[in-house]
Amino acid sequence: MNERTEQVTAYGELLQDAICDGLEAFEPTVRFREDRWERPGGGGGRSRVLADGETFEKAGVGFSAVHGELPEAAARSLGAGDGGTFFATGVSLVLHPLNPFVPIVHLNVRYFELNGGADRWFGGGIDLTPIYVNPADAAHFHGSLKSLLDPFGADRYPAYKRTCDEYFYIPHRAEMRGIGGIFYDHLHAVDPADWQAHFALMRAVGDGFLSAYAPLVAAHRADPYGERERDWQLVRRGRYAEFNLVYDRGTTFGLRTGGRTESILMSLPPLARWVYDVHPEPGSPEADTLRLLQPGHDWIPA
Amino acid sequence: MNERTEQVTAYGELLQDAICDGLEAFEPTVRFREDRWERPGGGGGRSRVLADGETFEKAGVGFSAVHGELPEAAARSLGAGDGGTFFATGVSLVLHPLNPFVPIVHLNVRYFELNGGADRWFGGGIDLTPIYVNPADAAHFHGSLKSLLDPFGADRYPAYKRTCDEYFYIPHRAEMRGIGGIFYDHLHAVDPADWQAHFALMRAVGDGFLSAYAPLVAAHRADPYGERERDWQLVRRGRYAEFNLVYDRGTTFGLRTGGRTESILMSLPPLARWVYDVHPEPGSPEADTLRLLQPGHDWIPA
Repeated sequence: MNERTEQVTAYGELLQDAICDGLEAFEPTVRFREDRWERPGGGGGRSRVLADGETFEKAGVGFSAVHGELPEAAARSLGAGDGGTFFATGVSLVLHPLNPFVPIVHLNVRYFELNGGADRWFGGGIDLTPIYVNPADAAHFHGSLKSLLDPFGADRYPAYKRTCDEYFYIPHRAEMRGIGGIFYDHLHAVDPADWQAHFALMRAVGDGFLSAYAPLVAAHRADPYGERERDWQLVRRGRYAEFNLVYDRGTTFGLRTGGRTESILMSLPPLARWVYDVHPEPGSPEADTLRLLQPGHDWIPA
Repeated sequence: MNERTEQVTAYGELLQDAICDGLEAFEPTVRFREDRWERPGGGGGRSRVLADGETFEKAGVGFSAVHGELPEAAARSLGAGDGGTFFATGVSLVLHPLNPFVPIVHLNVRYFELNGGADRWFGGGIDLTPIYVNPADAAHFHGSLKSLLDPFGADRYPAYKRTCDEYFYIPHRAEMRGIGGIFYDHLHAVDPADWQAHFALMRAVGDGFLSAYAPLVAAHRADPYGERERDWQLVRRGRYAEFNLVYDRGTTFGLRTGGRTESILMSLPPLARWVYDVHPEPGSPEADTLRLLQPGHDWIPA
């Protein structure tokens, strides 16, 4: 550990605590269960899962800080040639609400150092996967992400929204995983001033999560729904699992380089359905959602 | 089409019919629904799905015969350099029974030609994924596969069982997907006598499917079960989905090279569950199954 990795690690632990506290406010009885784990090669983490709540059917919020010799497969994937040492820390969450009108959400903020900090960079993002796309909710969510990025420059939100849209496209379904959000990676920071600015961005994203997402939970967790909405939720969760297992870099990289499987797969839905060749009735809310899951939408009204 | 591709195609269509007939014998009311499709680049297929039956919660049996210019990604993956033309035909099935005591099963038999037959080969296999491993059923299933291979040489069953065990290992779970079966690939056949022998093997595997699997359905489809067995089934189906989406070559190759998504993903379970860090109670039937899903089991009693 050096001064940088200590600061980011300390922030990650606080962020995990704050988010778990904020989510538990929606749960009258169920609490997060924490699983502390150590990585054989160095470091470890705290995986927290809340299951079968009144609001969240499954909520996984993970913190980890790991270090050691870079595994060969990881070095290849990072373009780090012969390997060396690495340090990686981050907070990652996926929430699967029970009510189909509350969207699935994903956050990740992370920091890497190679070879004692000779190279170092930040990455992260927040994105939303509604079961039924609600344009007003989408406007709130994207507006909230724009507000937290604007202090870092007006070009940030459009750039990170675009990166997010590119990333969360499912080619084999020809649709987006959800309505996107913001996503950034490889914010390299060799210069200390850059490092401070990137770390401030990480904190803004982390600290801004609850105000972007919690209002949607509050607004919809008691919305009435029936079997039809539940079925559609299970089908959309199947698409979520497909994206994560086939394309998501964090997931596939983690599984193939010996990451901690249970922590990586906390993101998978509590229950998911696969039905052959689903085609919602034209004009239905489900068909409307599929139309809104085509790429190229701007969610903040002009 | 040439004489070879015509013969294999005709066999594939007959095999699909025979298997669907055999499976419908377990269904008093529900029938397979057929979806005929065409591939824009050449050829097409017949996807057949039976859903919400009394015996099968979801059964997908696909036949396809496609040809044309080899897509670039496919050429790379096949080591076919600059591409050229291809022909591929096969029958593929995955059955997800409703009763947790009836195992999931998978069959695939396929035939490829490159550049009008300059290179041509067969591949295929059958493997079983019980929710609860039952050694007597495993002995019947493997014994049946051994019997159908023995006429082709006593070395076939042990070799193809080993290949199957290697293929269906899930590294990130450190367990087998199921109890294996037989699996072979790249049986090249430039010589006509080889070709006839390999085609005969394909037919033996296809024709032997029902006698290997149907007795397990007949024996267990009315076994009593409750919520505990259903839950375990959904968790095991989650592992099945993980294997297919992360590792299965047919699935990942198909999705990445523009295959027909709905036909490729017919294999995914109708319903699946992901629970954080499941550990069955020591000595329970679920723990017993996990022990038997470790590699290295011989299923045919000596």
